[in-house]
Amino acid sequence: MPPIDAAKLTADLIRCPSVTPEEGGALQLLETLLSGAGFACTRVDRGGVANLFARWGDKGHARTFGFNGHTDVVPVGDAAAWTQPPFCAVEVDGVLYGRGATDMKSGVAAFAAAAVDFVTDTPPEGAVILAITGDEEGDAVDGTVALLDYMDREGEAMSACLVGEPTCPERMGDMIKIGRRGSLSAWFTVTGVQGHSAYPHRARNPLPAMVRLMDRLASHELDRGTDHFDASTLAVVTVDTGNPATNVIPAECRGTVNIRFNDTHSGASLSAWLEEEAARVAEAFGVKIEVKIKISGEAFLTPPGALSDLVAKAVEAETGVIPELSTTGGTSDARFVKSHCPVVEFGLVGKTMHQVDENVPVAQIHQLKAIYSRILRDYFA
Amino acid sequence: MPPIDAAKLTADLIRCPSVTPEEGGALQLLETLLSGAGFACTRVDRGGVANLFARWGDKGHARTFGFNGHTDVVPVGDAAAWTQPPFCAVEVDGVLYGRGATDMKSGVAAFAAAAVDFVTDTPPEGAVILAITGDEEGDAVDGTVALLDYMDREGEAMSACLVGEPTCPERMGDMIKIGRRGSLSAWFTVTGVQGHSAYPHRARNPLPAMVRLMDRLASHELDRGTDHFDASTLAVVTVDTGNPATNVIPAECRGTVNIRFNDTHSGASLSAWLEEEAARVAEAFGVKIEVKIKISGEAFLTPPGALSDLVAKAVEAETGVIPELSTTGGTSDARFVKSHCPVVEFGLVGKTMHQVDENVPVAQIHQLKAIYSRILRDYFA
Ligand SMILES: [Zn+2]
Ligand SMILES: [Zn+2]
Repeated sequence: MPPIDAAKLTADLIRCPSVTPEEGGALQLLETLLSGAGFACTRVDRGGVANLFARWGDKGHARTFGFNGHTDVVPVGDAAAWTQPPFCAVEVDGVLYGRGATDMKSGVAAFAAAAVDFVTDTPPEGAVILAITGDEEGDAVDGTVALLDYMDREGEAMSACLVGEPTCPERMGDMIKIGRRGSLSAWFTVTGVQGHSAYPHRARNPLPAMVRLMDRLASHELDRGTDHFDASTLAVVTVDTGNPATNVIPAECRGTVNIRFNDTHSGASLSAWLEEEAARVAEAFGVKIEVKIKISGEAFLTPPGALSDLVAKAVEAETGVIPELSTTGGTSDARFVKSHCPVVEFGLVGKTMHQVDENVPVAQIHQLKAIYSRILRDYFA
Repeated sequence: MPPIDAAKLTADLIRCPSVTPEEGGALQLLETLLSGAGFACTRVDRGGVANLFARWGDKGHARTFGFNGHTDVVPVGDAAAWTQPPFCAVEVDGVLYGRGATDMKSGVAAFAAAAVDFVTDTPPEGAVILAITGDEEGDAVDGTVALLDYMDREGEAMSACLVGEPTCPERMGDMIKIGRRGSLSAWFTVTGVQGHSAYPHRARNPLPAMVRLMDRLASHELDRGTDHFDASTLAVVTVDTGNPATNVIPAECRGTVNIRFNDTHSGASLSAWLEEEAARVAEAFGVKIEVKIKISGEAFLTPPGALSDLVAKAVEAETGVIPELSTTGGTSDARFVKSHCPVVEFGLVGKTMHQVDENVPVAQIHQLKAIYSRILRDYFA
């Protein structure tokens, strides 16, 4: 079997219009390739979402390296603004254009190509797992979570996992993510009693309670950061009432906050704090405060160690760049994997992700495959 | 000339559909009546609004008693909900129905009838002025203000004035208004820099500044009331942002407060305070805060004395009720008259004003005319 061309595989994947939750032929294409190279493939579809689990080597082997990634992409946005058609993978001057070019069909192509070549050329003592989802950009409830549920059920396990999301802010190799902050949103509804502005004592205005609560939350210091994390942040993102009349005291108002938190906190600890603050203000102002909370992801950290060293050394060897170990940015599916095994994230430069004319230099795809290949060699050495 | 039937005059006025700013024939009807009784009448129309100035007796006489009121009415609202047609003045079981029945065609009819009978039967040593506007329920900028401007220009003056608005909360005679609180609204726009919730340090969220400012304003004690006034109040009536995305920090938000203030304050002193608070918070949070202020009316007080005694004694004599001297409620045109002469307000029970099926007991109209007649007799005695 000749080496897999990761750039050609990326182009083939871009041509599959796999906007979440459409499979678009992307996972089918990968399954055909991986099956042909001796991977045991299982489609783990759930809730209208397609996912692919592939393993080379023995089930449950103590030395099992995993790759995680997604083939679904965000919508094209303003289609007319693209200079190249978003699902045609047109290459111009060594740059490949298309939705998913950076986020993250190139990453999936690079680790699939690296894995196939590796098990074909130098079959390791151990196993390689590829857990690829079609639902990372959507709700993510039936994506990587479904794959991990399947693995638990079937006795499948990884000893370490690399998520191939784009992680480099400026140039190839400059950042590995060893953790991510968690994210939580809370919606508050304060209910009082409507009335006339001239007779406020006959009404019960919900707004003084709302602004006090929001002021308390916004000025609270959640923490000052940790060794590996920036300080957690809370943003009041909206407060709304919709009362156009200056002579009317409204009955109700709504406010929303979003918290990005480090491993000092958990979704549960923050929920308890928010509920307590709301209850305290509700009592002080004699109003009703309803709180609805959604935890989008818990914080996670894989402390610097064997796995981050392995990846950092491979990155430096292939690019000459010493990567920063970071916990910045939004959430990723690593937040789910972290409960199963040590996980880090490394991929290419993410500058054009989710944008019009998303693109990737072809050379970067080859470089990424080379890094993933070296990681596999070193892991099983 | 036989005595004027104030109830019949009220009914005739109700049949004039004088929803602000329509004259509807109401002032014309009064002008005909008053001219016939020897009043010098002048229409003082301004800005599309009709007003009527009428004087019996010598211009500029040191003993000139004035009545002020309005013939315009608020819209009928839900017309289908009225059990009697709103502009037909139908009488059922001694109760007269129609828009303006209490606010305040009955009041205007009662003082016009009292004044005509008085100057006809017992011509006084002095003058009687009726200043009747067609714009009290609207913006009020071309109503009583236009009449007062006209009087200033023409050397017309009142030594005392009674505004015939409904003032009694429960039963005929229970309240005279000797003052009113002022009213001011302020609109705040806080402008920051939009951004992503995950990177709040790159944005400048306007909401923490807004909730801090609103909390400071809402929890500030303006005063504790005075001998004649309740404490001033500030109501935050709305805060709005309109940001539906929890991952976005908005660029702007808006908030509005309404202040009802006693004579401890003025529109100017409160404006200065609001501007200063906004500037302080803007500086602390590094945002821009724009403030737009509208003073709807200054506070006014005619301290208990000759005029309130005169009215109170007439009320007690005709009804047996000792009226409370109050400064409660919203604004009225007395806020304009107060800069010209001592002014108090007395009229009938206002329970159904501005409502569907607005109505007035016919007996109450006669009683009100009797009170106004006694006030004139006692004033010129
Ligand atoms: Zn992605
Ligand atoms: Zn009125």
